[in-house]
Amino acid sequence: MNPAIRSITRAGINQGLEVLGIRNGYQGLLDDEFLPLDNHIVSGRVRDAGTFLQTSRCPEFREESGQLKALEVLKKNRIDGLIVIGGDGSLTGARALHRRGLSVIGLPGTIDNDLFGTDMGIGVDTALNTIISLVDMIRATAASHRRCFVVEVMGRGSGYLALMATISTGSQVAVIPEFRMNIAKIAQVLHNRFNNRHNNSVILVAEGVCGGAEFMQRLIEIGKVEQEVRLTVLGHVQRGGTPTHYDRLLASRMGEMAVLALLSGERGSMVATVNGRMQLRDFDDILDRRKGLPGDAIRLARNIGIELGDVVES
Amino acid sequence: MNPAIRSITRAGINQGLEVLGIRNGYQGLLDDEFLPLDNHIVSGRVRDAGTFLQTSRCPEFREESGQLKALEVLKKNRIDGLIVIGGDGSLTGARALHRRGLSVIGLPGTIDNDLFGTDMGIGVDTALNTIISLVDMIRATAASHRRCFVVEVMGRGSGYLALMATISTGSQVAVIPEFRMNIAKIAQVLHNRFNNRHNNSVILVAEGVCGGAEFMQRLIEIGKVEQEVRLTVLGHVQRGGTPTHYDRLLASRMGEMAVLALLSGERGSMVATVNGRMQLRDFDDILDRRKGLPGDAIRLARNIGIELGDVVES
Amino acid sequence: MNPAIRSITRAGINQGLEVLGIRNGYQGLLDDEFLPLDNHIVSGRVRDAGTFLQTSRCPEFREESGQLKALEVLKKNRIDGLIVIGGDGSLTGARALHRRGLSVIGLPGTIDNDLFGTDMGIGVDTALNTIISLVDMIRATAASHRRCFVVEVMGRGSGYLALMATISTGSQVAVIPEFRMNIAKIAQVLHNRFNNRHNNSVILVAEGVCGGAEFMQRLIEIGKVEQEVRLTVLGHVQRGGTPTHYDRLLASRMGEMAVLALLSGERGSMVATVNGRMQLRDFDDILDRRKGLPGDAIRLARNIGIELGDVVES
Amino acid sequence: MNPAIRSITRAGINQGLEVLGIRNGYQGLLDDEFLPLDNHIVSGRVRDAGTFLQTSRCPEFREESGQLKALEVLKKNRIDGLIVIGGDGSLTGARALHRRGLSVIGLPGTIDNDLFGTDMGIGVDTALNTIISLVDMIRATAASHRRCFVVEVMGRGSGYLALMATISTGSQVAVIPEFRMNIAKIAQVLHNRFNNRHNNSVILVAEGVCGGAEFMQRLIEIGKVEQEVRLTVLGHVQRGGTPTHYDRLLASRMGEMAVLALLSGERGSMVATVNGRMQLRDFDDILDRRKGLPGDAIRLARNIGIELGDVVES
Repeated sequence: MNPAIRSITRAGINQGLEVLGIRNGYQGLLDDEFLPLDNHIVSGRVRDAGTFLQTSRCPEFREESGQLKALEVLKKNRIDGLIVIGGDGSLTGARALHRRGLSVIGLPGTIDNDLFGTDMGIGVDTALNTIISLVDMIRATAASHRRCFVVEVMGRGSGYLALMATISTGSQVAVIPEFRMNIAKIAQVLHNRFNNRHNNSVILVAEGVCGGAEFMQRLIEIGKVEQEVRLTVLGHVQRGGTPTHYDRLLASRMGEMAVLALLSGERGSMVATVNGRMQLRDFDDILDRRKGLPGDAIRLARNIGIELGDVVES
Repeated sequence: MNPAIRSITRAGINQGLEVLGIRNGYQGLLDDEFLPLDNHIVSGRVRDAGTFLQTSRCPEFREESGQLKALEVLKKNRIDGLIVIGGDGSLTGARALHRRGLSVIGLPGTIDNDLFGTDMGIGVDTALNTIISLVDMIRATAASHRRCFVVEVMGRGSGYLALMATISTGSQVAVIPEFRMNIAKIAQVLHNRFNNRHNNSVILVAEGVCGGAEFMQRLIEIGKVEQEVRLTVLGHVQRGGTPTHYDRLLASRMGEMAVLALLSGERGSMVATVNGRMQLRDFDDILDRRKGLPGDAIRLARNIGIELGDVVES
Repeated sequence: MNPAIRSITRAGINQGLEVLGIRNGYQGLLDDEFLPLDNHIVSGRVRDAGTFLQTSRCPEFREESGQLKALEVLKKNRIDGLIVIGGDGSLTGARALHRRGLSVIGLPGTIDNDLFGTDMGIGVDTALNTIISLVDMIRATAASHRRCFVVEVMGRGSGYLALMATISTGSQVAVIPEFRMNIAKIAQVLHNRFNNRHNNSVILVAEGVCGGAEFMQRLIEIGKVEQEVRLTVLGHVQRGGTPTHYDRLLASRMGEMAVLALLSGERGSMVATVNGRMQLRDFDDILDRRKGLPGDAIRLARNIGIELGDVVES
Repeated sequence: MNPAIRSITRAGINQGLEVLGIRNGYQGLLDDEFLPLDNHIVSGRVRDAGTFLQTSRCPEFREESGQLKALEVLKKNRIDGLIVIGGDGSLTGARALHRRGLSVIGLPGTIDNDLFGTDMGIGVDTALNTIISLVDMIRATAASHRRCFVVEVMGRGSGYLALMATISTGSQVAVIPEFRMNIAKIAQVLHNRFNNRHNNSVILVAEGVCGGAEFMQRLIEIGKVEQEVRLTVLGHVQRGGTPTHYDRLLASRMGEMAVLALLSGERGSMVATVNGRMQLRDFDDILDRRKGLPGDAIRLARNIGIELGDVVES
């Protein structure tokens, strides 16, 4: 998120605005933790993962009382507009402030890429590159030791990361919430590979399906897999990669757009990227909606032989 | 390019085709250096830079005689269709074969991103990520030693890489062929930064402008820069990065598209990505045309305070 | 291990020997899976993790019958000497063959660094660098989210990796089998840090102590830690890093030494590095012995404020 | 150097000392730029390249007047002891202060590894790992394009980096100041490789020999090399790598040793690592002396077929 903060700061100052950062998320907003931002402070932050402003959970802000207090703090500090970076929860909070009259623009900061209305969120490309470099490392071990690896990747409600990383690492199976897992078929795929001189296989499991450990347990119980099966849960490492070019550029563009949008009187919307172009989408159009997987990625996965499971009727 | 080869192979076999690779580019085509490709051979190649089929220059192929010989070799090996990955030169060769009656589809393999008609070429994102990680390293030295660094990046005819990397590394100046360099203004920018407590600056120069060494010479001659100025020419290192997720996915999509296009009777065109979607563009529409820089990136660069030089009237 | 194989091959050929690789470990030896090695085959392998010869478990080799069969296969192929790379298990197998009359030299290939008699094993430095880059990534998340992270690293019987990585990542606590864990003291350390304006902490736990999950459970039960505590199990990713310079050089030196040792009539010993110099140590002097942690690292850890637990009387 | 600063700070505070950092090297000392260091400030710096205290050249300090002024500033700030991290120049300055009565301990901070008296300097391992990852990238291009690459690496007076990186990247030729270059023999090596089915070669040239550009010129003039020859000058990128485990540990050990040495009344010496152990060496024993290359590395290079040039009689 640091590139977004840099871009907002630089674009804001460039437009004659005064820019303040809020430390520590909504909790910091309630606690009046403002930090004046200038070119010096944001300089050199683009390569750091996470956010130098830090973040934290804030149950108080979900209550009406918390939101009213936030508005007061903002008023006291004479803040005219607010830019919120985050996922569904953060943007729901942003909408609440918008409905109470504040000028708010949101940026999609969710590395699962599960926010409806934007093709990509800030941090998704970085997470994917971190994941594929880790899976590449696991493949090196898998190939040396002739094993089958189950790798659990992030994704509570969305199989986006698992599907995409399966394609780009040359893995064989993606177990994702959007498809019904067919464990017998997966075992058959591994069995066939092993008997076709492939000495290793890699399966990516989105954490939202059942957890990698349970999946592995069930796979072994089928009794068809000749190889040793091992599990790796990638976990929090997935969040710490140095931002990629794509993410730095996306964040810079979105940050610039948010500043220009506030200046032109826009509010109550999120900056989105749709087919390579920046757009503004109303909070009401994007929140509480379920995002599907891109159809062309599913077709591509099938065309290059990736096992996805059975289609769910919906 | 390895992910493209993998995708072509897997999608082709999936469609019931026999897939052959040509080693060593057009020279290998003339020398009949075919390599049958299957899932084993392409497995695990997605993470290697470059191309395992190797490539080389082939002056003979630019002549009519060379092209006729190529057609003969292809006929002898009973090849029904050809997929060519490369830049302007390679695709011009592909068009020549197409005009002589061969079914040819091209993929944009140019890391300068100077091919007209496609938003991105295969390898561009990888090159950019390599460049920004190198510039991040130079910035660390620049900050420790309080210096100004001139970094020469690839780009004969296009400032795409230099512009984009300037934005995403938080550098201060991009010297690119699309704008008229104003060396006095650049010196002023550095002077102002230095006197505004910024102890380091980074300037990216596209090699096509004048070469980093000459640029540095001229900058020092102005006599306004208080800091030590140092030069780094990134050179061939820029071509060797491990393919990023973006490039693996783009290459996989384009490879799949090329196979499907050949099967459906398409020919004489290049697979392009335009606004996030795959398209086919006629060779005649894309070759020998000059690609401009994306307008939104130029605007973004200006909005966050990057010095680009003077607009060229055209 | 690839750099060791390269060095053995090149040094062997340089000395006029014929060099064969055995695919797939002792199992491959029993199955007669030899691969003639030359400069072409080993060229370019130095940067790949793992071993291109592959490896696997072989229960049969632990029996007398398996060892006799191995000697037969070696005799049939007219092999005069054997170089074995591996940990305690592999080298115990090597000693068995040595006792039955074969010329055998061992190389320490254990990334836990738990082999007695050598300061470092091949792969340890690479594993440590992989671990610290992952912990650096986790620290970025910990700092952004103000959390305490428990990171489980490799090390069944040895806390070497956990101790060293704690020092070099600037983490606060190492939980290792060589010291008695004092969970109340650890909770106190975290409590004090939190109340001293440190918003994040990282604890490294060697897997041999109790597993990261159990440790976290116990830590939370103490009830003194104000922050969210999260767990990451690094797992197999630790084995897949690109070999570092240190490991490539160590492996090259050890491979060269093994060849020269065999040629000079040495056998039944392992190549070791002691105080920066290569030595040969008898298998009997190194196997079945417990290696301690380096005393200066323990003192250093304490001097820079790392919590290690209570000293175990022994 | 950041890990050394962290270790000095933590070990110093642990011993009850007050620790001040000097910004900007000897220039900052003259300018009274002190920064009180505590655990917060140094926390999280271990992974940053360079030094967060920054550094710069200071011609004034080479004069007696500068040194006397430095002593005054130190006295005024009631500094009892000074730890200097740097190469030959910085430590010569440290000796000058020592001779004027100040308690000074030096740490070897030279990434060329050209400081006599210590096996390794702080930063050498990091530089080597950066170099080998860059050469690995160049090899990927060399292999794809069937070329010969000349890579210029750091090393004014010492071929240490070039020699070591040649060994660990599997390159073919090291051109270093310690040996007399035999350009005809190098051309012959390349010629033989090319005709022995090796389609690429990499030559590492220490910058102190003649510069990569001049070397390439001379190589091409011989007229024996069939392949395209390309040059890459690695330059300042070599200085910006994230510190490796080895360097973080070495720096931590040396920083701890420097603090303990000052406390025990030692002065006028540099912390060195010799055969894996920390030692103190008098400034007079190490300054102005020429360090040779390690003999076992030269022998290893020859045993695995690396061309080094002709031995210089000395």
